[in-house]
Amino acid sequence: MPCSPPSANGLFSGPIMNETLTILEKPIFGTLAVIGTGLIGSSLARAARASKAVSHIIMSDASARVCERVRTLGIADSVYEDAAEAVREADFIILCVPVGACGTVMEAIAPFLRPGAVLSDTGSVKGAVMAQIGPFLPQQVTFVPGHPVAGTEYSGPDAGFSTLFHNRWCILTPDNQPDETVSQVQAFWEACGAKVEIMSASHHDLVLAITSHVPHLIAYNIVGTAADLETVTQSEVVKFSAGGFRDFTRIAASDPVMWRDIFLNNKGAVLEMLGRFNEDLAALARAIRWDDGNALLELFTRTRAIRRGVVEEGQ
Amino acid sequence: MPCSPPSANGLFSGPIMNETLTILEKPIFGTLAVIGTGLIGSSLARAARASKAVSHIIMSDASARVCERVRTLGIADSVYEDAAEAVREADFIILCVPVGACGTVMEAIAPFLRPGAVLSDTGSVKGAVMAQIGPFLPQQVTFVPGHPVAGTEYSGPDAGFSTLFHNRWCILTPDNQPDETVSQVQAFWEACGAKVEIMSASHHDLVLAITSHVPHLIAYNIVGTAADLETVTQSEVVKFSAGGFRDFTRIAASDPVMWRDIFLNNKGAVLEMLGRFNEDLAALARAIRWDDGNALLELFTRTRAIRRGVVEEGQ
Repeated sequence: MPCSPPSANGLFSGPIMNETLTILEKPIFGTLAVIGTGLIGSSLARAARASKAVSHIIMSDASARVCERVRTLGIADSVYEDAAEAVREADFIILCVPVGACGTVMEAIAPFLRPGAVLSDTGSVKGAVMAQIGPFLPQQVTFVPGHPVAGTEYSGPDAGFSTLFHNRWCILTPDNQPDETVSQVQAFWEACGAKVEIMSASHHDLVLAITSHVPHLIAYNIVGTAADLETVTQSEVVKFSAGGFRDFTRIAASDPVMWRDIFLNNKGAVLEMLGRFNEDLAALARAIRWDDGNALLELFTRTRAIRRGVVEEGQ
Repeated sequence: MPCSPPSANGLFSGPIMNETLTILEKPIFGTLAVIGTGLIGSSLARAARASKAVSHIIMSDASARVCERVRTLGIADSVYEDAAEAVREADFIILCVPVGACGTVMEAIAPFLRPGAVLSDTGSVKGAVMAQIGPFLPQQVTFVPGHPVAGTEYSGPDAGFSTLFHNRWCILTPDNQPDETVSQVQAFWEACGAKVEIMSASHHDLVLAITSHVPHLIAYNIVGTAADLETVTQSEVVKFSAGGFRDFTRIAASDPVMWRDIFLNNKGAVLEMLGRFNEDLAALARAIRWDDGNALLELFTRTRAIRRGVVEEGQ
């Protein structure tokens, strides 16, 4: 998996990288354990340290090679291969592993979680993650599931940066957890630069299916379709990519394991939204076939207005 | 139609905007007439002037208001509402109008073209444009169809900039025109910063269908699908757009009339490529439904490699 620095005009980032985080006078949690040291985990460790949102940072990664790299980067106070070792002393634990690995990791760490500890995660799917974690959750541990809607097409601990979450939304799906703990987790994310929204897990999974999962699926798909053509060479596809295709290749360069897990774990909402997309695409294809220029013009004018909304929101 | 300056991290542009063009010692053509003063036409006028590729620039736009704006911008030596007036003295004429308007414009200007003049265009579809123009083409005028694969999501004369074509490909589909004239047109585009590739019109239309037209179609489509949902509000779609959707809204903000014309005029290739896209998407949906993680992982790993090709090519 390539580890490259995020580009200044990369997917999701933007010109926020030079801004600084507010530094807290009093940490929100004592010891933070970040399980998983990829783009999200390593950005979180950097943001938590820069903002002094926690006083001590432990990180853990299943790969010895990656742990070594994290030590070299110096973004944690200590680094363990064994996730169970990492959580023993932690007040706040955040799982930053692919959605499909949450259950396994949770099973491994559950016996070692401190009573009173707060657990969270950063998975792009919330229903399936909650279902995986629930059965292993100790009674005296509070779980506040989370999802920062931020990322780049790069992976690995080198790809992280402290302002990744700046001005991005982090969705929490606490589902009846104590307000006080939810507020703590919210304050942590705000210290890391994010804006926080609270909603149900099922609504989250629907919203993200249309704003993130299906867009990724169709980007992966068109890049695959283009690569498989007999009539157009791969070098032509690359050469003339500035006509629109280029942006799809950037999205289709996102982490393969992470995205496999997202699709398999948000199957219902993804297939539902994909069904809607397909219906609309069939209508559009029909408008083209039957020369219905007005139908095309109406849609293309409407979508332009939505772009203005996105620009105004600063997303 | 909004006229905004191209953003530094906008859709097709990139960090090339500060680079300068090579200035020619001897112009390639005497008088250039640019018909249509939108993003492409106005960028072309700016590039031709900056590189001194021509000695005199005439522009024309059907809208009196737009002509006035072009005069204020000062990017042409003279500006006419009447295209016929604009071409009388021109040695080199480039049509920069939506693909669907080429025939009408050609019919209007044909009687006024000088013998020996060279005609070109910038349409994103080549077969249909050649079919529209052919019947009106005077015997002593040479037509070298062209398509610069460059653009942004902005429209209008204010959106243009002189380095839009820098390091981008311009495809010529001359179809048996004299080598000498084709070389002149090629030299003109190279002076404007582009790299030139020559191919047949039908191959061009196939290549662009997959690298540009279908990507735009599915971007317009998903933005429309998202806007029409009852279960997710439009404000949620905008708010959480950083998860991937945002990039689609940028593509779906492209000029509505230009894109309507492209789809209607490259119907065959677009519907063929869309058919391939749909087949592949159905297979992907099936892999998700039946938990075939390996199929997903295989595709997502392959598409990541194509991204590397695009980055290496600098497109």
